[in-house]
Amino acid sequence: MPPIRYLTAKLAQQIDEELMSAAGAFSLDQLMELAGLACAQTLAKVYGKQTHEKVLVCCGPGNQGGDGLVAARHLSMFGYKPTIYMPKPGKKDIYQRLHTQCKNLSISTIDSISDLRNALNSHHAIMDAIFGFSFEPPVRAPFDEALPLIASSGLPTISVDIPSGWHVENGPIKLTREGGEELKGDAATGISPDVLISLTAPKEGVRVFKGRHFLGGRFISRELEKKFELNLPEYPGYEQIVELSAVSKGGEKL
Amino acid sequence: MPPIRYLTAKLAQQIDEELMSAAGAFSLDQLMELAGLACAQTLAKVYGKQTHEKVLVCCGPGNQGGDGLVAARHLSMFGYKPTIYMPKPGKKDIYQRLHTQCKNLSISTIDSISDLRNALNSHHAIMDAIFGFSFEPPVRAPFDEALPLIASSGLPTISVDIPSGWHVENGPIKLTREGGEELKGDAATGISPDVLISLTAPKEGVRVFKGRHFLGGRFISRELEKKFELNLPEYPGYEQIVELSAVSKGGEKL
Repeated sequence: MPPIRYLTAKLAQQIDEELMSAAGAFSLDQLMELAGLACAQTLAKVYGKQTHEKVLVCCGPGNQGGDGLVAARHLSMFGYKPTIYMPKPGKKDIYQRLHTQCKNLSISTIDSISDLRNALNSHHAIMDAIFGFSFEPPVRAPFDEALPLIASSGLPTISVDIPSGWHVENGPIKLTREGGEELKGDAATGISPDVLISLTAPKEGVRVFKGRHFLGGRFISRELEKKFELNLPEYPGYEQIVELSAVSKGGEKL
Repeated sequence: MPPIRYLTAKLAQQIDEELMSAAGAFSLDQLMELAGLACAQTLAKVYGKQTHEKVLVCCGPGNQGGDGLVAARHLSMFGYKPTIYMPKPGKKDIYQRLHTQCKNLSISTIDSISDLRNALNSHHAIMDAIFGFSFEPPVRAPFDEALPLIASSGLPTISVDIPSGWHVENGPIKLTREGGEELKGDAATGISPDVLISLTAPKEGVRVFKGRHFLGGRFISRELEKKFELNLPEYPGYEQIVELSAVSKGGEKL
């Protein structure tokens, strides 16, 4: 079987658009629900709740953050104790609904840097759902402060789709703040996660990722898969996630 | 632990309304996605695709049918070959979108009694998503003809939430056609499934059900569970379904 395809920004965008077009007929609610469920299941597969009960779910203002909110809810249903760090809530109605669903589960939300600092000392794992495939530097406030704190926390970290700060095609790149100053230390080139959950298909920039790599977003038709030559691996049984390193990665059988 | 609660029609209705109220903040798209996924996973758990590849998913015109459409899509993603029998498509926009998603997976849809008769001879299992908890006799055409055919097919059958034709509180009851004529034979009191997947919580009418009984719809908060004294069982790990007979059924430990 040919190796799985790594997507450019343009292709990733195009697939999302096709899925949600009149022809594809998916709603954002549906896709985000399945994506966020896959994120939560990946965390639960790798980090058991006995040892990693308290998970800090870091959410950006875009769709990535929406996936994070869905994941936080499912993690709570699984018996974890998630906290949401969301300093810049997205404005779309869907993010507000997803956030309300979390609040109904008594999941608390923090938004200040000092709360983030405290949370990093009291949680067992991080879900990084800050920036997605449309991220471009500079890193805007308050994420220019948050990213270094998260990156240097030493906590087990799982990134959603693309590690925050990475370029969707070029991977880890030198990050700058607004004004041009470079980010220093552990976050100089973005988050370095232990685990990655790619959604629908992995992106070009994550070819260099060396940790445990999962795929989720089991909603791509054979036709779409063929059209975009995705060469997706087979998901086991009725699972919503599949580990790529266990199948093949960059074409290499492991 | 106190036994799981069996819901009256009123309670089931109330829980759905709370979930989708401004306070609950769930969209129908989300709940139906998780419900339909649970239905598909239950079928996949009980009837492997090597032996039960061709599944006839029978959809009614209401939310039950919507769950069926979502399940058909996931079954196709799992590698099954589902066919949809949907003689009276629901009119809401969501059913049309869900149906389009199935058509994009090349899932075919039949609607005539003669096609249903043929399909029952060529499929390995049935998912019954025709009538839900708001069903009241009489059984309207064409379901007054379809129910007897499905019931007498001898195919392994899994019902969604409540077997079609059963009363949500009184269970199997004598069914009549419009005009008052009683249904005869295998469908005299509705479908007798081998497997049942209850959604959110089982309904009063299914207490007498003797087959394998699963629960899905893992989206009820502890608060809602407490408020309605649901006493839901614990779902294993990150699963979206739990088998009730393996936990306790009607309070009796098995």
